[in-house]
Amino acid sequence: MFRTKTCGELRLSDAGQEVTLAGWVQRIRKMGGMTFLDLRDRYGVTQIVFEESDNHDLNEAANHLGREYVVQVKGKVAERASKNSNLPTGDIEIIASDLKVLNPSEVPPFTIEDNTDGGDELRMKYRYLDIRRNPVRRNLELRHRMTMEVRRYLDSKGFLEIETPMLVGSTPEGARDFVVPSRMNQGQFYALPQSPQTLKQLLMVGGIDRYFQIVKCFRDEDLRADRQPEFTQIDCEMSYIEQDDIINLFEGMAKHLFKEIRGVEFDKPFLRMSWADAMRLYGSDKPDMRFGMEFVELMDTMKGHGFPVFDSAEYIGGICAKGAAHYTRKQLDQLTDFVKRSQIGAKGLVYARVGEDGTVKSSVDKFYDQAALQELRKKMGAEPGDLILIMSGDDAMKTRKQLCELRLEMGRQLGLRDKDKFACLWVVDFPMFEWSDEEQRLMAMHHPFTHPKDEDIPLLDTDPAAVRADAYDMVINGVEVGGGSIRIHNSNLQAKMFEILGFTPEKAQEQFGFLMNAFKYGAPPHGGLAYGLDRWVSLFAGLDSIRDCIAFPKNNSGRDVMLDAPAPLDQKQLDELALAVVEKK
Amino acid sequence: MFRTKTCGELRLSDAGQEVTLAGWVQRIRKMGGMTFLDLRDRYGVTQIVFEESDNHDLNEAANHLGREYVVQVKGKVAERASKNSNLPTGDIEIIASDLKVLNPSEVPPFTIEDNTDGGDELRMKYRYLDIRRNPVRRNLELRHRMTMEVRRYLDSKGFLEIETPMLVGSTPEGARDFVVPSRMNQGQFYALPQSPQTLKQLLMVGGIDRYFQIVKCFRDEDLRADRQPEFTQIDCEMSYIEQDDIINLFEGMAKHLFKEIRGVEFDKPFLRMSWADAMRLYGSDKPDMRFGMEFVELMDTMKGHGFPVFDSAEYIGGICAKGAAHYTRKQLDQLTDFVKRSQIGAKGLVYARVGEDGTVKSSVDKFYDQAALQELRKKMGAEPGDLILIMSGDDAMKTRKQLCELRLEMGRQLGLRDKDKFACLWVVDFPMFEWSDEEQRLMAMHHPFTHPKDEDIPLLDTDPAAVRADAYDMVINGVEVGGGSIRIHNSNLQAKMFEILGFTPEKAQEQFGFLMNAFKYGAPPHGGLAYGLDRWVSLFAGLDSIRDCIAFPKNNSGRDVMLDAPAPLDQKQLDELALAVVEKK
Repeated sequence: MFRTKTCGELRLSDAGQEVTLAGWVQRIRKMGGMTFLDLRDRYGVTQIVFEESDNHDLNEAANHLGREYVVQVKGKVAERASKNSNLPTGDIEIIASDLKVLNPSEVPPFTIEDNTDGGDELRMKYRYLDIRRNPVRRNLELRHRMTMEVRRYLDSKGFLEIETPMLVGSTPEGARDFVVPSRMNQGQFYALPQSPQTLKQLLMVGGIDRYFQIVKCFRDEDLRADRQPEFTQIDCEMSYIEQDDIINLFEGMAKHLFKEIRGVEFDKPFLRMSWADAMRLYGSDKPDMRFGMEFVELMDTMKGHGFPVFDSAEYIGGICAKGAAHYTRKQLDQLTDFVKRSQIGAKGLVYARVGEDGTVKSSVDKFYDQAALQELRKKMGAEPGDLILIMSGDDAMKTRKQLCELRLEMGRQLGLRDKDKFACLWVVDFPMFEWSDEEQRLMAMHHPFTHPKDEDIPLLDTDPAAVRADAYDMVINGVEVGGGSIRIHNSNLQAKMFEILGFTPEKAQEQFGFLMNAFKYGAPPHGGLAYGLDRWVSLFAGLDSIRDCIAFPKNNSGRDVMLDAPAPLDQKQLDELALAVVEKK
Repeated sequence: MFRTKTCGELRLSDAGQEVTLAGWVQRIRKMGGMTFLDLRDRYGVTQIVFEESDNHDLNEAANHLGREYVVQVKGKVAERASKNSNLPTGDIEIIASDLKVLNPSEVPPFTIEDNTDGGDELRMKYRYLDIRRNPVRRNLELRHRMTMEVRRYLDSKGFLEIETPMLVGSTPEGARDFVVPSRMNQGQFYALPQSPQTLKQLLMVGGIDRYFQIVKCFRDEDLRADRQPEFTQIDCEMSYIEQDDIINLFEGMAKHLFKEIRGVEFDKPFLRMSWADAMRLYGSDKPDMRFGMEFVELMDTMKGHGFPVFDSAEYIGGICAKGAAHYTRKQLDQLTDFVKRSQIGAKGLVYARVGEDGTVKSSVDKFYDQAALQELRKKMGAEPGDLILIMSGDDAMKTRKQLCELRLEMGRQLGLRDKDKFACLWVVDFPMFEWSDEEQRLMAMHHPFTHPKDEDIPLLDTDPAAVRADAYDMVINGVEVGGGSIRIHNSNLQAKMFEILGFTPEKAQEQFGFLMNAFKYGAPPHGGLAYGLDRWVSLFAGLDSIRDCIAFPKNNSGRDVMLDAPAPLDQKQLDELALAVVEKK
């Protein structure tokens, strides 16, 4: 060992001890005949003192250290004259008797401080230096603690962690696969799993009635802030259960994590809301429940007053922003610009302020008299000082989604989205299918293995778009942290599902024959769910992007800028794989 | 829940309870007016009784069940008339009051019994049925418990589990990479990691001084019984440590696992042996220490007696098989055939039996008089009843490896390799390099990041082949379960190492520039090791192959016969990746 103690553990009660520390030079200060060195490691910072009068050479050596040098220091723990109460080790310092440079350092490209001067790109290129910074390291520590607690909890409930293969078959249904050419089977490819979905179902067929795995998954999609080409799932499956059993067990896990990791206790069950209600009241299948501001439908109230925009609308809905009547014209114009941005695409916004005397003044006063506006106010439950915001459109679902963006923005502006407050929700009763304009067919909203609600099974033949699924998502603060479903365990029902999804029987057999075949040999009723670990850690860490809870993330082009990957292959490697790169036309 | 109890938990004390069980039909027996159903789940088997006189329809339904049907049974727990002491639930049975078929089953392609009638290939194709069998499921349970204990232990020692990326850069040094074409960066490829070696070193540079990860690794090699294209490593790294610190900590982990998982306690430290001694005494860098039978070098004893084979040999060595003088001529001929097999490739074998009266009779009596043979006996420490086996050759290392095979075979034949006895060993002081005839250059024996022994560093310039490394393997029962080294943390030393390995500075920079660059910014002294999880689980499970401790293994052609992967891609997928498959010439 190069050290007897870490830089985070010495306290006043250790005064007088001879210790050896090792770590990085955070800072050097020369003050008169003394040199102060802040020595840092994973556990903290300890002040080291070199006294010139005591040992000239040693003091001289200390003065030649640079930032991020790796050093070993021997010395005696002493009480500090001026204590630093911000530092756990702030009561003591080490009077150095020996100093050894274990490795020098060039000047790092950015400062290793909580608030660094390094931009995103530089930090990613030198990620190994970025990880030395407290905020990044703390995220990795949090991630470790979360996975430990997940495993502890699931193990205590009889779940087995079972590794499923990474080299599997490609299934073009769903997102795009990353593929891996096989050298031993030339012209053939493995795929990296988008999730272990079918494999965990096979484990259920195999009698492993409680399975989990914390596992890397892969999707070759265009990237966004909360997407990475490789991401980590907490993947779970159970047999002989119904939807409520899964929801209860995993709500228990969530509460366990909240308590152990964040110190938050929930004394009530999480709210459950149907997908239809979530869309109707919040315009989202993952509503942020830290605040209310539910949608109020205003078709009856606002139509028929001669305002052409509303009179021709298929949907009119409003939200009531409590206490926001003070919004200036400029602020309201900015909100209008916000909903008109191309990402949201609304045509405009109508507002109505409720004055202190209860009168309502709106941006469309010329169409609505005070009586009509009072009707609006009543419908919205608005009180003096509140601001009513109304949107409309010719597609109800599209307009709700636009209103959802406005609601979230208002929540943000009014400080209702506190990162240290948590609102958890199960969204249930998802539709089984959604129509894809691009593919011109019904697609599985969840995935093709989802069990329809028993009472809706007859609709599969008559009105498949109306079929609801035994599917559920766990939503925290507007983030979908996990989701799952009861699965089909009957090979005929599974075949029917593929048929509705436009698979020929041959295609279904080719791609999912192994699963449908397995269902013929005694598949038990089963279901499960998967959490996005990266998202959940980000949420607990209060991060906006999942990137900073990943040790070595990729950028938006899917590149690892530190490793400089991907990169061209040697011709020899291509030859062995019998592959050629086709030049782009 | 489809059940209130599992099939493994009911005892006599539960008699009288109304319960609901669910599981698979193991067996149906009709005896007079009764039908007995053995119902099986992950936890055990419970006997269900249907009485015809009680409920004719229910009994009839039970008689129509087939093997592996999934059923739900309601009934009352009752004491059995004739108890089955082989079964934990053998004191009770369930008097059925209701039966529901949850899913029928076709006749499975092999029996779901501890000793199945299914061959390897069939079992792999229907692996989901194979997993229902106790021996396979127990291996997966063992694997789960081992990884839980590894995590518990390392977490208690302050290690952080940190996920490193799966999509990294290709490094043609070492084994062959699996590669992954990038769609977003056409013509470029990621590689799947052969191990997170360089990434964990970067984490050390990043100040994470105790890292571990249980992680999938990938090697595109030709396969054997103990190799899979994807395998799992327990990967560990520490900073500010020396070799002994690592050995002590991970010996602690091994002892923890032995105690928790196998109930075996070791009261002494594991033996440590230099690589040179291991090769000299056992002809192997992973000797099986469950038995002795060390090699005795016999050059002085056996040369110069006119036996041309020995007189011209560069190495002569013998082993003493205690109490094996009774070996018949036929058995000895079989041993000779064994060492002459092409996999071993020896020319022959000389034997000498020590009679009860102490006289020695050898297969080369015509060259050695009794005095010479007594000298041999003395040298070998052989006693009356022992068998001496001698091999020779013109390449000492090659001959030792042949003698090693003979020693292992004799150990097996004499019952000295008990799977329930464990002998653990650290092999240390490995050579830094080994000569590759194929490549006509020195190759890193461990990997290019291994630190040479400080005292051998001057030899890097003068006699690199003589340099020893700070490298160590943990060997249990002749299986290398793990290995590691102290790493280089100095960029100049690392550059020199690449030079000796035949890298041009440009090539070294291109492939490992990120690491050498990182070493310039304050890399701490560090080292670590990695365990092969599959091998360790196999060892604890008493398996000969790693396959049966893997849920979904691949066959020797790298195929998953259940998923039928790999497979050809759709043209559309190839086009998106800008790839073409080159027809084999």
